[in-house]
Amino acid sequence: MNKLRMGMVGGGPNAFIGAIHRAAAALDGEIELCCGAFSRDAQQSRVFGESLGLAPDRVYDDYQSLFEKEANLPVEKRMQFVSIVTPNNMHYPIADAALTSGFNVLCDKPATLTLDECQALARRTEQTNLVFGLTHTYTGYAMVKEARQRIMNGELGTIRKVITEYHQGWLAAQVFDGNNKQAAWRLDPAQAGQSCCMGDIGVHAANLAEYVTGLRISAVLADLGRVEPGRVLDDDGTVLLRFEGETRGVLLASQISLGEENCLRIRAYGDSGSLEWHQEEPNTLLLKRGDQPTQILRAGHSYLSAPAQAVARTPPGHPEGYIEAFANIYRDFACMVSQQQGKGVDTTNPEHSPERQQISDLPGIAEALRGMAFIEQVVASDAAGCQWRSIEC
Amino acid sequence: MNKLRMGMVGGGPNAFIGAIHRAAAALDGEIELCCGAFSRDAQQSRVFGESLGLAPDRVYDDYQSLFEKEANLPVEKRMQFVSIVTPNNMHYPIADAALTSGFNVLCDKPATLTLDECQALARRTEQTNLVFGLTHTYTGYAMVKEARQRIMNGELGTIRKVITEYHQGWLAAQVFDGNNKQAAWRLDPAQAGQSCCMGDIGVHAANLAEYVTGLRISAVLADLGRVEPGRVLDDDGTVLLRFEGETRGVLLASQISLGEENCLRIRAYGDSGSLEWHQEEPNTLLLKRGDQPTQILRAGHSYLSAPAQAVARTPPGHPEGYIEAFANIYRDFACMVSQQQGKGVDTTNPEHSPERQQISDLPGIAEALRGMAFIEQVVASDAAGCQWRSIEC
Amino acid sequence: MNKLRMGMVGGGPNAFIGAIHRAAAALDGEIELCCGAFSRDAQQSRVFGESLGLAPDRVYDDYQSLFEKEANLPVEKRMQFVSIVTPNNMHYPIADAALTSGFNVLCDKPATLTLDECQALARRTEQTNLVFGLTHTYTGYAMVKEARQRIMNGELGTIRKVITEYHQGWLAAQVFDGNNKQAAWRLDPAQAGQSCCMGDIGVHAANLAEYVTGLRISAVLADLGRVEPGRVLDDDGTVLLRFEGETRGVLLASQISLGEENCLRIRAYGDSGSLEWHQEEPNTLLLKRGDQPTQILRAGHSYLSAPAQAVARTPPGHPEGYIEAFANIYRDFACMVSQQQGKGVDTTNPEHSPERQQISDLPGIAEALRGMAFIEQVVASDAAGCQWRSIEC
Amino acid sequence: MNKLRMGMVGGGPNAFIGAIHRAAAALDGEIELCCGAFSRDAQQSRVFGESLGLAPDRVYDDYQSLFEKEANLPVEKRMQFVSIVTPNNMHYPIADAALTSGFNVLCDKPATLTLDECQALARRTEQTNLVFGLTHTYTGYAMVKEARQRIMNGELGTIRKVITEYHQGWLAAQVFDGNNKQAAWRLDPAQAGQSCCMGDIGVHAANLAEYVTGLRISAVLADLGRVEPGRVLDDDGTVLLRFEGETRGVLLASQISLGEENCLRIRAYGDSGSLEWHQEEPNTLLLKRGDQPTQILRAGHSYLSAPAQAVARTPPGHPEGYIEAFANIYRDFACMVSQQQGKGVDTTNPEHSPERQQISDLPGIAEALRGMAFIEQVVASDAAGCQWRSIEC
Repeated sequence: MNKLRMGMVGGGPNAFIGAIHRAAAALDGEIELCCGAFSRDAQQSRVFGESLGLAPDRVYDDYQSLFEKEANLPVEKRMQFVSIVTPNNMHYPIADAALTSGFNVLCDKPATLTLDECQALARRTEQTNLVFGLTHTYTGYAMVKEARQRIMNGELGTIRKVITEYHQGWLAAQVFDGNNKQAAWRLDPAQAGQSCCMGDIGVHAANLAEYVTGLRISAVLADLGRVEPGRVLDDDGTVLLRFEGETRGVLLASQISLGEENCLRIRAYGDSGSLEWHQEEPNTLLLKRGDQPTQILRAGHSYLSAPAQAVARTPPGHPEGYIEAFANIYRDFACMVSQQQGKGVDTTNPEHSPERQQISDLPGIAEALRGMAFIEQVVASDAAGCQWRSIEC
Repeated sequence: MNKLRMGMVGGGPNAFIGAIHRAAAALDGEIELCCGAFSRDAQQSRVFGESLGLAPDRVYDDYQSLFEKEANLPVEKRMQFVSIVTPNNMHYPIADAALTSGFNVLCDKPATLTLDECQALARRTEQTNLVFGLTHTYTGYAMVKEARQRIMNGELGTIRKVITEYHQGWLAAQVFDGNNKQAAWRLDPAQAGQSCCMGDIGVHAANLAEYVTGLRISAVLADLGRVEPGRVLDDDGTVLLRFEGETRGVLLASQISLGEENCLRIRAYGDSGSLEWHQEEPNTLLLKRGDQPTQILRAGHSYLSAPAQAVARTPPGHPEGYIEAFANIYRDFACMVSQQQGKGVDTTNPEHSPERQQISDLPGIAEALRGMAFIEQVVASDAAGCQWRSIEC
Repeated sequence: MNKLRMGMVGGGPNAFIGAIHRAAAALDGEIELCCGAFSRDAQQSRVFGESLGLAPDRVYDDYQSLFEKEANLPVEKRMQFVSIVTPNNMHYPIADAALTSGFNVLCDKPATLTLDECQALARRTEQTNLVFGLTHTYTGYAMVKEARQRIMNGELGTIRKVITEYHQGWLAAQVFDGNNKQAAWRLDPAQAGQSCCMGDIGVHAANLAEYVTGLRISAVLADLGRVEPGRVLDDDGTVLLRFEGETRGVLLASQISLGEENCLRIRAYGDSGSLEWHQEEPNTLLLKRGDQPTQILRAGHSYLSAPAQAVARTPPGHPEGYIEAFANIYRDFACMVSQQQGKGVDTTNPEHSPERQQISDLPGIAEALRGMAFIEQVVASDAAGCQWRSIEC
Repeated sequence: MNKLRMGMVGGGPNAFIGAIHRAAAALDGEIELCCGAFSRDAQQSRVFGESLGLAPDRVYDDYQSLFEKEANLPVEKRMQFVSIVTPNNMHYPIADAALTSGFNVLCDKPATLTLDECQALARRTEQTNLVFGLTHTYTGYAMVKEARQRIMNGELGTIRKVITEYHQGWLAAQVFDGNNKQAAWRLDPAQAGQSCCMGDIGVHAANLAEYVTGLRISAVLADLGRVEPGRVLDDDGTVLLRFEGETRGVLLASQISLGEENCLRIRAYGDSGSLEWHQEEPNTLLLKRGDQPTQILRAGHSYLSAPAQAVARTPPGHPEGYIEAFANIYRDFACMVSQQQGKGVDTTNPEHSPERQQISDLPGIAEALRGMAFIEQVVASDAAGCQWRSIEC
């Protein structure tokens, strides 16, 4: 087996998410970081790339050089995909350049700054016939996959109510805005787009709701807050939801919920059962029924569905976490890229079995479009004084 | 010490809440059930009253006889207050008759069917100068009192976001509507009023939010559902909230959340701390801060505020539950009635100390009015297609 | 229905357990406190009795007067049982006097100071044919009854391992020994007997293990500590257990576990399933299997066994607590006394149905004997340098 | 930065722990698997090694060839350490051969089959001056490190009681013994040594207790069971403990606790505070005090000690799990090997800062010796009918 060769744009020093991407990519021994442009400061990029053990000639000054020079390398040496981990405003130009240069793309969400950009990106993706993956990380957890399967299998009956929540507290204090590099770009419309809270985490909660239920959000009514004085973008919000088929829902998101860490949760209520999952205790899924004891489903068990079992690296009781969920996204992406490149993967490795490839459900350009439409309509609904807005895409 | 003499209207066989009222009243040995009219069926009322050990001549055919005959008894024998535990539509006529006949009233919520009725009841209460108490039971829990104190003391700073939830599953299936006496009247507009879910449990969640934060809800935007086909009244809903002073909030309530039992929760986020409380684990209160470990406050400890300590019957680790919370409402009400009647209570009993009386915070006619206004505006907001409505009262 | 008339010895001011006994007795409206001798100080007893609303002539100077004078009252006025809530050393003389005077007895545990005394008490009980109940309160919880039923029904197969724990921290600091009335007598061999920790709480854990599994402890090996310097009695200990039929077990008990409140737990492992219960979250019972999801059994549900349903006062999700568990002991005791007295109870009250009476499983003199034998052998095992000792009784 | 080159012995197909070792080694991008002998079947080893992407000439038929041939490679290509992930009985010969051939060793626990072997291994390690690491994985968790720090800093005062538990259910049924490769060797004295349960997991619990408290176990009294009929080795056991300085303790371990997954826990009680940690929820540490609310310490926060912060890869609320804990062991080991080899690591990478190196607390040969002594004395104590045995080493 040859490892898949990855490049990276962004993710330099102090960018925690870059280190997580690299760990997730490395975890299963199937992907190798071979090049990158890690910082807008070329010198910083070089120093950092070398600290990662990269060959100096594979560390580039900027993403343009990266794509140009990698494209000129022999095919067996050249990177096979690029991971984009920059602030939001750079996602689109970089992704577009990558695709244009012939490289598959794994991109942080939201995919672009606007829905228009995203539609352009979708067209580009279609033209190039390359793989575009979007890191809706939370769909990588085994028990999220189990939740989705239980609903797809009909165990909960018709879903009638969905509550999805994502609470954080890290933007609760104004003081963060200046001191914190993360906070600075997330709260700046030029870098983050039209929304902070909904664009950063609300869109994850919306994606999780759609992924788990298999239902698409058809309309939103949003009430967004700029709780800390002086902010232009939202730092808190609630969105009433309608899903196709009249399923009702609510999405709560906040970055000013002091004391909350990364509290992403989903509850889905059907007419024959319900389920509940919390990201902070990710290896557990509660399955509820009206007239029977609640069941605690736990990762790693043989009673789980094939997709949940397929991503298990450890036996029950040996917790897997966020990096493993992220690694599942990378693994699915790697499978798709390998298939795309006509070489397949080594099927003597059970982790690359056809069974595993079949159940890939990587978020891609469709989810990117839906995410951008969600953000735009949520912002529009709030701006219109809490009016219902349809989501069509 | 003489026990306070209680009468009861409603609460006959199969009415679970009647038995809980009696247990709560009996718990502290300060109140004695002496008479009642337990059922609309006079014969059933008599049999039931005798099974409770009441003297046959103190079991009445209907509430009118109850008030008339008790009023004619000598003052030292006569009941001192009546507890009203009927379906909603009877609350107002019975409470009004009780007050008119000179009896203090402890009434289940919602106090009336309409805000108009409630305003009439408020006037009557004021005229008679009697005590009117409303069983917003959940405010009786020690840790709810602690939550309120922590916020009143300023420990959380300015409250900026409130999430209050009340999920049940007992109306999830249509089959209940016919078979279940509870369900039958709760879903019938003639008996329950203009709302099922919001009138039954949403109003508890709203009261809890106001009680804990000390802030009044100033506006609502509601999205109500009739999830089971064929229902006239709501069985599910979400309400966007504004509190005075621009605090933002959300209220989620549902009776079709299959697998949920009595899941009442509140989370309040301030600019220097946050708290979280779950009714199903009532002896615990979480206190969160951004830069310190979350604290688990537990009932019975000496580090709690005076109001939380005053209601403790057991040492830490010996759980108190729903009946004890209910008994705290009865105890506060009994204190107020005793004071009202100019006799005070025996202060040799530490449970009747002046300190304890001071901290009484019994829900009364003001909460009744606010509850009815909440229900009316929520229903109106939903009917208008999710528009903001003010609550003024 | 006439209420059962109760007297009380002990439980005066500042004795928290006395107040809990009275609340538990009152809760269901079936028992009435009619007399008592509440303190060794006659004056204090009188003042306290009056504060409880008792007639002055039914408040006695000491237990001897209580039994003598009550025995001379007309049978329809006389107390029908006495509740003994004094320090341990007084249990035996009071219980013996009560039985001798013809009164049924409900006694705090441990029943006596020594096994010899307990055997004498057992003979007396047998002679008088009166009811002797022992307040192993924790067997009163609905979910403990459910645990017992699940094992009796064979759902767990053969029980092979039992872990029972009882951790408290209230004796962790030496300073308590002097200031605290509770601590003072519990640590004094003259008042508490030969053991503090094992006699106070270890014996509860042992009883819980036998009650839940239906197996009797046949041998013990104990390692007791006197952790705080200068103590004569144990404040911490671990006991290796053998149950009849070779089931293995461990009992952990401690009163120096700083930060623990009243952490009584049991885990029982069978060859086809396991269960786990925690007293501090008493309405939940976990049922585990090797190849299926763990089930969360919750109080109040219709899927529970008859004995667990029979003690439910509230619907699911409305927590019941320690006082309710205690009230279940009182209710079972009252049923037995009523039956004993040939009058039965009013079966028009569903709480007194024959079904309910059948499932009474009140701890009595047999459990008293086993408790005393457990304490004696544990102390002997430890004194012998951790040797196995048989329990035969 | 050049990656550290690792070889592996064992860990072939179906050996779950081998895959976890490789993932843990890969996670931080600092270690590269370059060679191995993965199976006793040379052909299987070759196929498997190729599936991992290794060069065919670096996949060896057996461990002897591995060491011989790697030792002959140029120093800049040669592996720098070997990871030993075979059944227990092979640990010693392989580790001894590795050291003799000049290779650093990271070895699964227990280090050897007997204490004698372990002493020989200790002498060899000392002679060679190479690094010997032992994968007591659970010490790699951030919150275990935090627990250790809190005790070292004196926050809990003098530790007086320790309870450590490790419950699994995977050997609960006899049927596993035949079918399951894991079970087969673990229950076979020739491969597993003198103990199954204590040798496999009890020794982890003992190590955790010593690591967290900083106290050494000085004596044991053990009660071991062979619960499933026909087993030669223990599958369950309880061990009474004494630590140096008279601290009391209990160790519970079981592999027949049906329904348990990997339930490793520790509670330590000091005279000014206590703590509690559960492996299945590893990012949380409870800190208890007698007169203050319990604190929930959570991984990733800036209020944690330096060693706990140093191992954080993710912000609070993004769970890290078992593989990350394992990776922390690998990272510490890699630091020591790099330092040993006189080259240090690239300190431009913050993960290799001097600060980080200082706080390495990798389990090594001392822990190996203590583990073997623990196992031998536990087995001896049980065989002698539960007598106290000293542990001296």
